This record gives sequence, structure tokens and C-alpha cells, in this order.
Amino acid sequence: MAFSEFRPLDEKVLIEYIKATPSLSSQLNNNFDNLTIKEVGDGNLNFVFIVVGSTGSFVIKQALPYIRCIGESWPMTKERAYFEALALREHGGLSPDHVPEVYHFDRTMSLIGMRYLEPPHIILRKGLIAGIEYPLLADHMSDYIARTLFFTSLLYRNTTDHKRAVAEFCGNVELCRLTEQVVFSDPYKISQYNHWTSPYLDSDAEAIREDNALKLEVAELKSLFCERAQALIHGDLHTGSVMVTHDSTQVIDPEFAFYGPMGFDIGAFLGNLILAFFAQDGHADEQNDRKAYKDWILRTIENTWNLFDRKFVALWDTNKDSGDAYLPAIYNNPGLLQLVQKKFIKDLLHDSLGFGAAKMIRRIVGVAHVEDFESIADASKRAGCERRALEIAKLLLKERRKFQGIAEVILAIQQVQ
Amino acid sequence: MAFSEFRPLDEKVLIEYIKATPSLSSQLNNNFDNLTIKEVGDGNLNFVFIVVGSTGSFVIKQALPYIRCIGESWPMTKERAYFEALALREHGGLSPDHVPEVYHFDRTMSLIGMRYLEPPHIILRKGLIAGIEYPLLADHMSDYIARTLFFTSLLYRNTTDHKRAVAEFCGNVELCRLTEQVVFSDPYKISQYNHWTSPYLDSDAEAIREDNALKLEVAELKSLFCERAQALIHGDLHTGSVMVTHDSTQVIDPEFAFYGPMGFDIGAFLGNLILAFFAQDGHADEQNDRKAYKDWILRTIENTWNLFDRKFVALWDTNKDSGDAYLPAIYNNPGLLQLVQKKFIKDLLHDSLGFGAAKMIRRIVGVAHVEDFESIADASKRAGCERRALEIAKLLLKERRKFQGIAEVILAIQQVQ
Repeated sequence: MAFSEFRPLDEKVLIEYIKATPSLSSQLNNNFDNLTIKEVGDGNLNFVFIVVGSTGSFVIKQALPYIRCIGESWPMTKERAYFEALALREHGGLSPDHVPEVYHFDRTMSLIGMRYLEPPHIILRKGLIAGIEYPLLADHMSDYIARTLFFTSLLYRNTTDHKRAVAEFCGNVELCRLTEQVVFSDPYKISQYNHWTSPYLDSDAEAIREDNALKLEVAELKSLFCERAQALIHGDLHTGSVMVTHDSTQVIDPEFAFYGPMGFDIGAFLGNLILAFFAQDGHADEQNDRKAYKDWILRTIENTWNLFDRKFVALWDTNKDSGDAYLPAIYNNPGLLQLVQKKFIKDLLHDSLGFGAAKMIRRIVGVAHVEDFESIADASKRAGCERRALEIAKLLLKERRKFQGIAEVILAIQQVQ
Repeated sequence: MAFSEFRPLDEKVLIEYIKATPSLSSQLNNNFDNLTIKEVGDGNLNFVFIVVGSTGSFVIKQALPYIRCIGESWPMTKERAYFEALALREHGGLSPDHVPEVYHFDRTMSLIGMRYLEPPHIILRKGLIAGIEYPLLADHMSDYIARTLFFTSLLYRNTTDHKRAVAEFCGNVELCRLTEQVVFSDPYKISQYNHWTSPYLDSDAEAIREDNALKLEVAELKSLFCERAQALIHGDLHTGSVMVTHDSTQVIDPEFAFYGPMGFDIGAFLGNLILAFFAQDGHADEQNDRKAYKDWILRTIENTWNLFDRKFVALWDTNKDSGDAYLPAIYNNPGLLQLVQKKFIKDLLHDSLGFGAAKMIRRIVGVAHVEDFESIADASKRAGCERRALEIAKLLLKERRKFQGIAEVILAIQQVQ
């Protein structure tokens, strides 16, 4: 079945749709007995239906032509589903262990059919709030990040393929503009959408709006975000875009994907881990002071970066004859290649720290907050956690170029009182 | 008349074509008596016909599906005429005094009809070789560069329009790839296309191929060139792309146009002026030691940058409420705006020095050389001029971030022995 125009799904329409769509019905082995359908989208951006039959399952995600945020409804192109499906397929091909398989895409309906990440998969952010350790998280995420970024960059690709892909993803501009606004703009000005733990953080929010050195650096990051087509990035790689079990790590929701700076993805993930770290004091109780868990988060930050570094450079070494960025005839001597890689990785660390910090700040004084903090009921305690996160974020953003490695970043985090 | 497929022009076909094309025939007031047609293209890339009637004139430029270079023929898309026409119109709208008007464009025929830049217009490079001063050159070029770059950047535009334009110009990738090869790759490796004043510069060319620090910096510039869509740049703004009289300055041939780093255009122009400076000793004779002219070139370099700086910042001040890069609600306080502008201009100077230096190097040890040096008959004398140019180019490329302003650059040029 192909609908000739967009229709928001409901359960009845969905069943009809599945029966008429071989790539979906075959996932159920054409067995529609005992089908259960559950809508689990938070309703802010998309419908998400979990479809489970006796012999198969999948998820249907449908983009709606708006997003809802603190009660406001912003129009937002449902074409984002097209870019999400493109990115899922591209990243899935590069990192199949960590991206759910796409079974079906319907551009008219803005509808993606994909693998159902069955229980006990939960959103990583919720696991971090619950204090659950994921021993493979750093290994998995470093793998996903290294492979998706390396293989979509000019380190692997030629400029012909690169420019073609860049041009295609320029079409996802509406989602990029949303990021520009909520990450790089709103937190640094008076905006009706901003909020924070008031009155505790009133002066902190004001200080951010009046910090010229900070705003100077944010402008540079925004310009990188808008202008530098370095790799196909996920575009929203916070801990709410990752589903985990003890053994599995799956990256979902790349609807913000486009060709942008690599550091934006790495920073999003590390920055949200730092937020999780500073939220722990708000979750501590008499049973669990969360001290060991905080150490695990820091180790995970450090390991994610170090494993990423190692894997990324290994991919580069293996593929050093590919890609238009560093031609072997020029760069393929051991001393120079190492020099070039060291510089690349150091610049990327600085970008990642900058973007990560910007993502932290926006989650505390901008429009969309994180459950890590929001779930701390005591406002005064929550504000204390948030203030410490803000403090390190401002430092990382302004002084990012002074950090020689991730170990120094961890030290700086530990030193925040 | 519309040809249904591409045909290389000859005089007979051209007359037929003009008569059947109102936008061209009207330029001649439909008077085809005493029409003279002269082909003046150097035959390397394009046919160029000058068409002069008794009551009007124009130039017809037709892109051919290859370029010729030192005897070799490289296939090259004639679609470049499309991007040239787009850029001429876009830049012409922004800087009408310094870009010839486009009367007609035919995509099938890869053909542009445009204003004939009548005598005494000559190619600036030839004027520089002849030792002619152009008192308005710095003023005109700074105007053209400031306006074309400012108005096509995010300082003036929103990101929606920007990404649409970026995507369109991604189509000009073949020309970008040619630049990648001849500017950022070939000079730094053994290439059949490279040549230099041998044997004098044999060891200089080898030193460039083995200079790791230089190659590290060239990689960074190449990555900017390939990834950073900062503004619609001309893409080939050397002194052979500028036609001049005492009073007029006209920028032609933007077939390499695309969204790239601003510094690439500024660097191309300044770098070629520096080449012209170092070539003067080869043109000096008993009548004219060229000392005064060398001073004029240096003043022109300094004035071009300083006037560009002033005009660009003035455009920014006037349009500070436009563009998505620096939102007024965040950046519109006098102290911060100045801080941001100073940083932008300084970064741009460093980019310009890097790109300018890369363009100098490639003109001495790469495939395509400049008449400034080629016209020095004495090979030993020529090599001396070229070696001094190489020396300053390597310094500018590697140490560009140490220069605080253009005056320091001028001093460094003067200090080369």
C-alpha cells in the first residue's frame, strides 16, 4: 500500500499499512495473529509504535510536521524522516552492531520501519540516572563514533562523493537551524524559551548572557557547525539517543544528521556524560552515595575518548591510501603521518570539548533540559549540581585549546567543587 | 535559436547564433553590418570571441569539455560555464562596478554572452609585468572582495539560503578537484605535471616535497578548502583574472566559484601581487630599476588588505542585524561586536596568508606558472626571483598565525634577500 499523501498514523491505519507492505509484513512472517501495538513516542516530535507479533517485531516511527516543546508547537518539516532514514542506513552500514536495521522507509508518510530494540534495552540516560554501569559502553560508542565519522570524511572518501553527499544533506537545514537556535543562540540571550532552576541559577544564567569571552568562543563553534562539512554526523548524540543493555549499545534518532564537524557528535556524547556525572550527587541517598558510580562515569568518558582515538587512528592507518585529504604520495612517511594524526586528534579534542560544553550549557539554561537534573526533586540541591556543571562547561568552552589530552579534562572535572 | 546539443563554436555558427538570440542581437541593436569577430581565447579552457559591431559589442565565452595544460589534455566538465554564469551574476549584483554584465547564458552550449571589456583594458598581470601603476586598484579590489564575500556569507545571510546555495555550488566539484590537485597536492609530491626553473631550483623543489612542517600546514588549508563553506568565492582570483585600465578594475573568469573559505580569494590576489613583486628584479633594466614600482606593489598589497578590512567591517556594522552568524540579541553591544570583528579579521588574515602562500608555491614548482616569472628570459636570474618568492611563501605558510597585521607581512617581504 502506498498512501498518496501524508496521514498521521493510528492503530487501525497502521495495521492496514503493515498488511499491505511486504517489507514490514515479512518481518512478522505474515502472521498477524496476536499482534500487539503500543504507541510509546513522547509525542514531542514523532509517533513511535512498537509492533510485536508471535513471530516477529519492529518499530514504526513517523515524523509529525511539528515539534512540541514546553507546550509550544513549532512547525518542523517531516522531511526529517528522510534524512533520518538516510543516516540510519549509512551509519548502519558502517556500524551495524550499534545501529538498528531499517526495514522500510516511506517518504510520503515520513515513516520508518526498523528493528525493535526489545527489553531490557533502555535509554542510556535513564540507566545513568539509575546508577547502572555498562561495561561495554565506552568500547561500543567509541566504535560507532570512530567508524561513522572516519568513513564519511575525506580521510576515506574522495571529494566528488563527499560534495554529492554534502549537497544532499544540505536539505536537512530546518533541523540544523533548530540546533543553531537552541544550542548556539538562545542560552546566550533573553529568550521566552529559556528556563532554569530559578531563583537559584538566576545570576548564573545572567552571567552566561554577559560573558563576552564565552560568546566569542560560541560564535566560533557555531560557525564550524554551520560551515564545516567534515563528516556525516548524527547531530544529536546525547545519552537520550542511545539505547543500552549490559551487552548491547544502539544509537537511534539521527534525524538531525548532516555533514558537520566531527566534534559535535563526540562532544554531545561526552558532554552528556559530564552532565550525568554532576547529577549523581542529586541522586545519592543513604543506600548509595554514588561515589563509585561517579568514578565509573569518569572512566567511561576517558575510555570513550581514548578508545575513539586509538580506533580512529587505526582506521586511518589501515586506509591511509584512501581519501582525498592526505594523499599517500605526500603524507605516507611514518614520521609525517604520525605528526598529522596527532594534530588532527588534538584539534578534534578541542572541537569536542567546545561543542560538548555548549551542549551542557544549553541543557541547564536553555529550552530543553535533561532528566538527569530534572529528576532531582529538591530544587536547591538540583541547582547546586547544575551550577557545578555550568562551571566546568564554561571552563571547557573558553579554555579548550589548553587541554593536551582527556586525562587533563577528567582532572578538571574532579576539581570542580 | 537553441541548439539541442552542445556544438563548439566557429565564426559562422556564432553569427547564426547571435542573429537568433534576442539578448545578444539587441546588444548590437540588431545591426549586423560591419561585424568583426575575433577569437582571443588562449585555447586552454575556452573559446573567447570578441564581437564588435558598429553600434554595440560583447564577448562570447564558450567552455570546452577539456582543458589543455603543457600539452596534456584533461577532460573537464563544460558545466563549469553554468557556475561561472551563476557567479558572474551573483557577484555582479553585489559589485556591479567590478564585474562585467552577463547578457546571455546558454547551458546546453556552455556559452556566456557578456560585456566586452574594451581597450585599453588589459590583464592586470601584464600591466604588472610592464610596470604600470594602477592608483585605484587597491580601492577597487578591496571593494569587490569585501562586498562579494560579506554578502554571500552568514554575516549577511540566513542558514536556509546559505545551505541552498552551498548545495547548488557543490555541483562545481570537478573544478574544485582541479584546485585541490594543482594547489594542495602536486607541488608537495613527485608529479609528471610539475616543473620549475631547472637545474637552479631542483633542490628548492625537493626541499618543499620534504618539508614536513609545511605539508602539515598545507593539509589544514586543504581541509578548509574542501570543507568550509564560508562564502561564494571566485575560486581563482589571481592577477590574470582581473582586467584593468587606469580607472577601471574588472574581475572575470569565476568558473572555479563555489562556497569555500574567504581567505582563498584574498590570498590568491595578494599572493599573486607578491609574485609580481619578486619578479620585478627580473624586469629591471638600465632605464628602470623598478624600485619605485616594487614599492607601489607593496603599498597596493597593504592598501588592499587595509581597505578590505575597513570596508568589510563597515558592511558588518551597517548590516549587523542581518545574517545568522552573530545575532544582534547576543552580539550587539559595542565592546563585544568589536572583539568579534577583530578576531574574525585576524583569523581571515591568517587564512589569507596561508592560501596566498600555497598559491605562490604552486606557481613556481607546480604545473601552471605565471608570466611574471616566465617572461624573465635569463633562467638564472628568474630562478633567483623565484627562490626569494618561495622563501617568503614558506615563511608565510608556516608562520602565518604569528602575523598581527599586514604591515608585518610587508616587512617580512622586504627582508627577503
